Order: sequence, then C-alpha cells, then structure tokens
Amino acid sequence: MNIELYLTAVPFSEANLENKAVVVVDVLRSSTSVCAALLAGAKGVIPTDGPGEAGEMRSRLGGDNTVLAGERNGVRIDNFDLGNSPSEFTEEAVGGKFVIMTTTNGTGIFKKTAKAELVLSGGLVNASKVVEKIAQSDQDLVIACSGQQGNFSIEDTLCGGLLIDLLASKYQKAKKMNDAATIALQLYQNNVSILRETIEKGEHGQYLASLGFKNDVSTATLIDSMPVRPVLRDGRLIKDDN
Amino acid sequence: MNIELYLTAVPFSEANLENKAVVVVDVLRSSTSVCAALLAGAKGVIPTDGPGEAGEMRSRLGGDNTVLAGERNGVRIDNFDLGNSPSEFTEEAVGGKFVIMTTTNGTGIFKKTAKAELVLSGGLVNASKVVEKIAQSDQDLVIACSGQQGNFSIEDTLCGGLLIDLLASKYQKAKKMNDAATIALQLYQNNVSILRETIEKGEHGQYLASLGFKNDVSTATLIDSMPVRPVLRDGRLIKDDN
Repeated sequence: MNIELYLTAVPFSEANLENKAVVVVDVLRSSTSVCAALLAGAKGVIPTDGPGEAGEMRSRLGGDNTVLAGERNGVRIDNFDLGNSPSEFTEEAVGGKFVIMTTTNGTGIFKKTAKAELVLSGGLVNASKVVEKIAQSDQDLVIACSGQQGNFSIEDTLCGGLLIDLLASKYQKAKKMNDAATIALQLYQNNVSILRETIEKGEHGQYLASLGFKNDVSTATLIDSMPVRPVLRDGRLIKDDN
Repeated sequence: MNIELYLTAVPFSEANLENKAVVVVDVLRSSTSVCAALLAGAKGVIPTDGPGEAGEMRSRLGGDNTVLAGERNGVRIDNFDLGNSPSEFTEEAVGGKFVIMTTTNGTGIFKKTAKAELVLSGGLVNASKVVEKIAQSDQDLVIACSGQQGNFSIEDTLCGGLLIDLLASKYQKAKKMNDAATIALQLYQNNVSILRETIEKGEHGQYLASLGFKNDVSTATLIDSMPVRPVLRDGRLIKDDN
C-alpha cells in the first residue's frame, strides 16, 4: 500500500482521501483519551470543532446521555465536565454515555475526513490494534498527525513512525511513502529505545508537564497499553469489534 | 543560542523574529540558484512574490540592469529570461545585473522576515559560509524551510539539520532547540553518508528529475561547493564580504 503522512493538519486538508484509510493521531492527548473513554465503557466519542458545536450536540442528544470533555491550550474548558486527561475518563464519569469532545489540535481533523473509506483514531497506546485493521483493509493509508497549532509535533510524528514500522515489519505492507512518512519512520527507529524520554523532552510534553499533566505524558507513551480500536461511524468514534 | 526550525512556511509566518537571525532554506532550487547567481557576478538577487511584482520591479530598475528568473511548479515562467536551474546563472546571463526572482516556494518567504536582525539565504552548497556568520552574530536562530507548497520537504529539513550540526559541532552554539530542529538534526545525522541518494529519492527530487532537472538535484546536494554568503539588505540578496 501507499503511505502518506502529514505532519500537521494544514497540508492534510489538501490530501485526496478517496478510497483511502485515515488514521488521525494526537498522542498528547486526545488519541489517548479517546481510547481511555471507550475502554471505560463510553458508548462513543463525538469529536467536535469547538465548545459551541459541543454544546449544541449536547442539547440534541440530551444531558443525561452525554458528557462534555475538552481543553484549550491544555486547560479544561469552563463549564465542561471533563478536561482532556486520560485519567479523567473513568467508568463512573463516562460509562454508558457519549463523550462530546473538543480539543485544541486533534478533534477538528475528523471533520476533514468525510471522503475517506475508513477513519480511525490512533495513538501509541493502541498502535497494534489500529495497524491490524489497516493491514486487513489493504487500502492506501493516510496518517494525519495533528501537530501543535499548525506546527509539527514530535510525539505525533513518532507515533506515525511506529504505525509505519508495524505495517512494514509485521505485514510487509509499506510500499511507497511520501517524504514525511520516511522521516517519521526514521525518527521512530532512532528513538525506539528512548521514546518516553524523547516525548517528555518535546515541546508539548514540557508544556503539559508545566500545567501539572506529567503523568498524562507518561500514560500516552505506553505502547499498546490500551488495546481498543476507535473507528469513526456517522461522526462518532466507537469501538470496532471486527 | 536558541534554534527554532520551521518545516514549512505556514508556521514560520507566526514566528517571533525580533533580534533574531533567519536562514531561508530552499535547497531545490532557489537557495542553490541564488548562490550560483552571486558567484557568476550578479549584483544581487531580488526575491519577489510573483510574476506581477517581478515585472514591476523590472520596470523600476530598467531592463538593461536586470534579468527575470523564476518558475512555477518547476517550469520557467513565460517570457522570463531564465528558469530556476543553477546552471542557467552564468556570467554571461547575469554578470553585473540584478536577478529578479520568483519561485513556487522559496522567494515569498523573504517578505516575512522584516522584523529579523539578519537574513541569509542558505542551501547545502553554502552551509559553512552561512553558519560562520550565524556563529559570529550569536543571535538566536530561526531556520525557515520553504517546503513544498505548504508541505514538508526532506531536502530542506536535511539542510536545516546540517546547519544545526555545524553550529553544534564546530561552534558549540546549539543550546535549546524546538521539536522540528531536533528532528532535522537527527535526520541529517542519519543520512549524512547518503545525502544525495536520500534527496534524489525524495518527492521533489523525483519531480524535478521527471522534468529533466536531475543534474540540478545533484548540484544542489554538493555541500559547500558554492562558498558564498547571500545576505538580505534592502530587499536584495547580496554577497556578504565580512
């Protein structure tokens, strides 16, 4: 399969997604929180563009069935039930409910995937589950790294590299790659033994630590620790059971 | 010094440049062509946004003193004297004249550097000359990779990595780096022995080869082969003699 990786959301907006599989990557932290929410028994996670849309969605689905979660610049949005720490998504908080989520970098990207055949949310914590599905589908793959407010981020690129490494080594599926995919694979292979340290030293890792979220950064770096596969259906990320 | 690298022009537009030195990098091909032009005796290279601005500039400076050079998507612009092949910038073509230049990715970035203290044009072919000046100035450094139409490109990132590697190894100047600078340095160190091959295999390298410009790609990969230092003064890239 062909693999294209986009380091940020800006060039991704221009990508041709027809008949392709897309993995949206936002390691710190929405990809990780989506997995945590689904594992804690949430019915689904609904990515939205902003607090306005999130509020409307809640009015539509009803307050009893839903939880509002999200942050701007790392900090929980006023009047939201939850922020964006994976640890907040407990069974008590989200079990049996839809999580309506909006984050600075990650959630908006799902709106741009309408033309894709298959859309998954992928992080380091569920890399193998995601890759298994991609290998089965055998469609060309687009990896959309969220980045950090229009800029590249090291943790998303490393995660993209891990996905490609698994596709290549386990399934012999990586045929042709764009420049960004090549660089992501090299970066991952360079840092495989010091992944957590590299991410903690990265800009966004340091920023989150300064806000008191150092544990979230560690949680997000544990490869395959949350074996769940969030797939987008009708605008909702739900557990894929196939 | 602090080193920030921007993988594309989009996030660079938001960077704070006050009291900083900026190196604009467009390995394929404008950084290389600027060096070729100055070495061939051009009085200066004037980077412009587009053919319209280039034409106006020529009217202002007079046809006898100027040469129009530029491309869109790799191909010479209609009615321009030259395209963007380094080999076109001969003494006969540009000696004693100003080259008014517009290219798809590289030249527009200079317009966004007004607040910087020092602005240089850097490629692989003049890396050591550029780094020498940056080390002398001892200002914080911003490396602006042009990329490819909003997307990341491997050759500009490798060149950024070479600049950082030289600053670190030769001058012990690299103190703090952003994520993109870290990745660029790693990428360069990974590929140092196969630089030409990596760039030829890259997306833009292959595209230029398909247009018949394979020699330009090889030329652009020869480190320090064009020892000249183009510095921006009053909107013109001129030879820096200090």
